[in-house]
Amino acid sequence: MEVIRSNFKDNLNKVYEAIEESDFLAIDGEFSGISDGPSVSALTNGFDTPEERYQKLKKHSMDFLLFQFGLCTFKYDDAEEKYIMKSFNFYIFPKPFNRNSPDVKFVCQSSSIDFLANQGFDFNKVFRNGIPYLNQEEERQLREQYDEKRSQANGAGSLSYLSPSSAKCPVTIPDDQKKFIEKVVEQIEDLLKNEESESLELEPCTGSVSEITYLLKNVFILKERYIVISKVDEEERKRREQQKQAKEQEELNDAVGFSRVVHAIANSGKLVIGHNMLLDVMHTIHQFYCPLPDDLSEFKEVTSCYSFSKLIPFIINNTSLAELEKRLKEVPFSPPKVESAEGFPSYDTASEQLHEAGYDAYITGLCFISMANFLGSFLSPRKNHVSARSKLVEPFFNNENQVCLTVWRNLPMVTSIQIPQNVGIDMVG
Amino acid sequence: MEVIRSNFKDNLNKVYEAIEESDFLAIDGEFSGISDGPSVSALTNGFDTPEERYQKLKKHSMDFLLFQFGLCTFKYDDAEEKYIMKSFNFYIFPKPFNRNSPDVKFVCQSSSIDFLANQGFDFNKVFRNGIPYLNQEEERQLREQYDEKRSQANGAGSLSYLSPSSAKCPVTIPDDQKKFIEKVVEQIEDLLKNEESESLELEPCTGSVSEITYLLKNVFILKERYIVISKVDEEERKRREQQKQAKEQEELNDAVGFSRVVHAIANSGKLVIGHNMLLDVMHTIHQFYCPLPDDLSEFKEVTSCYSFSKLIPFIINNTSLAELEKRLKEVPFSPPKVESAEGFPSYDTASEQLHEAGYDAYITGLCFISMANFLGSFLSPRKNHVSARSKLVEPFFNNENQVCLTVWRNLPMVTSIQIPQNVGIDMVG
Repeated sequence: MEVIRSNFKDNLNKVYEAIEESDFLAIDGEFSGISDGPSVSALTNGFDTPEERYQKLKKHSMDFLLFQFGLCTFKYDDAEEKYIMKSFNFYIFPKPFNRNSPDVKFVCQSSSIDFLANQGFDFNKVFRNGIPYLNQEEERQLREQYDEKRSQANGAGSLSYLSPSSAKCPVTIPDDQKKFIEKVVEQIEDLLKNEESESLELEPCTGSVSEITYLLKNVFILKERYIVISKVDEEERKRREQQKQAKEQEELNDAVGFSRVVHAIANSGKLVIGHNMLLDVMHTIHQFYCPLPDDLSEFKEVTSCYSFSKLIPFIINNTSLAELEKRLKEVPFSPPKVESAEGFPSYDTASEQLHEAGYDAYITGLCFISMANFLGSFLSPRKNHVSARSKLVEPFFNNENQVCLTVWRNLPMVTSIQIPQNVGIDMVG
Repeated sequence: MEVIRSNFKDNLNKVYEAIEESDFLAIDGEFSGISDGPSVSALTNGFDTPEERYQKLKKHSMDFLLFQFGLCTFKYDDAEEKYIMKSFNFYIFPKPFNRNSPDVKFVCQSSSIDFLANQGFDFNKVFRNGIPYLNQEEERQLREQYDEKRSQANGAGSLSYLSPSSAKCPVTIPDDQKKFIEKVVEQIEDLLKNEESESLELEPCTGSVSEITYLLKNVFILKERYIVISKVDEEERKRREQQKQAKEQEELNDAVGFSRVVHAIANSGKLVIGHNMLLDVMHTIHQFYCPLPDDLSEFKEVTSCYSFSKLIPFIINNTSLAELEKRLKEVPFSPPKVESAEGFPSYDTASEQLHEAGYDAYITGLCFISMANFLGSFLSPRKNHVSARSKLVEPFFNNENQVCLTVWRNLPMVTSIQIPQNVGIDMVG
């Protein structure tokens, strides 16, 4: 399912539900570039230590934008003995929210852009219709802005929290505005006396609104630029105040945007699968949470603090996702049984749609299912389905020991090793 | 006219012709961002000296991409007493040409991207279909690569420039390839003896091509990966060699791409008009010629060296192009008479398509015509049409004294000054 700014809010509950009901999740990101320094192959060199790789990616990859996020949720149906999957393709863009919001700069690498263009990637969906996001600090600042605005409004006497009689020090009105303000006061007094009229529309004014609002004891400001003043009773005033707060909360939610999905993934505590996942997780932390820590050990603390600890990255030397998916259909593995949920697009692995993030996440999920089920073949009696929650899978969690699932290029060679020495699947790091 | 990668070659002669026949040109660029440091208003602060502005733009604007280039050519039709204009909108993207070509990184600023998105800008046209380009150094390197490849091919004995009898030291053939090579030699000898067969298709091989090519005395390699060997006589060999060189030249031209249009503009020596033009010219030099010099005086030398000296930038304080265009239709100016050439799109100034580069260039041209004609109103007898080549306009050329046309905000005020004190149009800098 394609999710862009205009349908994001409507589909958010669907996303939450899919995450909540799932047995595990697979994610994948597409980026505006990979490396602003060494070549991509040098950057993701398989011989680097995890710390070296972390440092390289931190230095050379973080100025690019994660602009497509694929999420695939997998739920096992015991009766049907198959997985039901829901896939989402989120297009992401840091659209400035208002004049005070961050004006993000990001780098594009022409080879990466050209690669995606050749895959039919739709850049208009990103740049015109991408879902915005905020990191934690930006969200905090925006909340503060709203709070400040509200307290300013209160302080200046919009009366949302003030009784009409509360004593206040009057604001000094500049000489050139005195006439205008006096006229407004007169008009408001007339409005309050006159039982017939319910509201008053002020002339458009450039004068500071706060001076005027101070004078409004029994009235409510509807618009900030073009001021309409209405008589309201206490109840109506409260209702409108609540309305305004709800609207502010909605605006804030809109601005936090895609970060809400990331928070939901993190808070779900579900197992998250990815292919060459370090880059995806680093971008996810960097873009939606906070600046990346100095070293890998701190990074692990941060990811575990954001409940991103249950991660399984595939680290596969020189093996593309497409190749891996084909191998994991063959002996000694078996093709996984997976079907799209109703109303969700089904992917066809025959007509490869690789490098759409949602499809890559889907394939990653398929690979995981094959590998997890393969673990069951060493049990007696043999088990055809191994759940993502199974104790068998747990040793491979990317916990503080940074354990990763690895499939070696030469599969027949490693199938001779027995569990717990991790057959066909090996622990590294 | 919209020009993208696929129709670029077919339209290039049309572009050359339009430039050649024109009286003057107007250009405008759209960028992936404006400032990676100070706010845009601080960057283009009207109080800066030209040198300060140059330094600021050089430091904070050059990492962005000029990705749409508008060119509008204006040719005066004496009989009809009106200008005929041709407008071109070029979409530009540094698509990597081959594995050795530069992998350009450029920055995007979310506010600029969002601004263009709101104007309906089509990012797919840039990223999927943009015309590539090379700067002078890149073009030189690519030429060298081709030359090197050709001389390597000659040295290894593809025989394009070698007579079959020329003595050469044999290449050492690795043991594991000897059998394969021997078989190929045998096959080639058979081919040469056999009058009936004209060509020989080798088995796909991973072996080094040079060892094989050394053995080919009387034959021509058609493909480099999947080798087909054909018998050719001297004449046929020359024909094919020329074909190959022509193909290489075409590839090189394709890679130089949009830079060819910029070279044509520069070489034409035509007057080039722009609005707030310093940024456009800096990007043009930086992207299509060479890195920007350290200071403004050197920059002026460079622009004049590339025949970009006849430039007229409008420097208009706080006046948008749209506003300027409206003003220049009113007294004391008169609306210019301009029509689109046949087969070219006509722009409607009523339904503003501002911020499409071609349209902005068009409007800039209209403004220039109004201002140039206005100069004629001070002559006696009054002249309604003042050519772009007129001596009246010359003082405003952006020559080494960096003279710029400036229209002040308060037009009535300055209309009281008389030529040569530059009425309604003032010299600055």
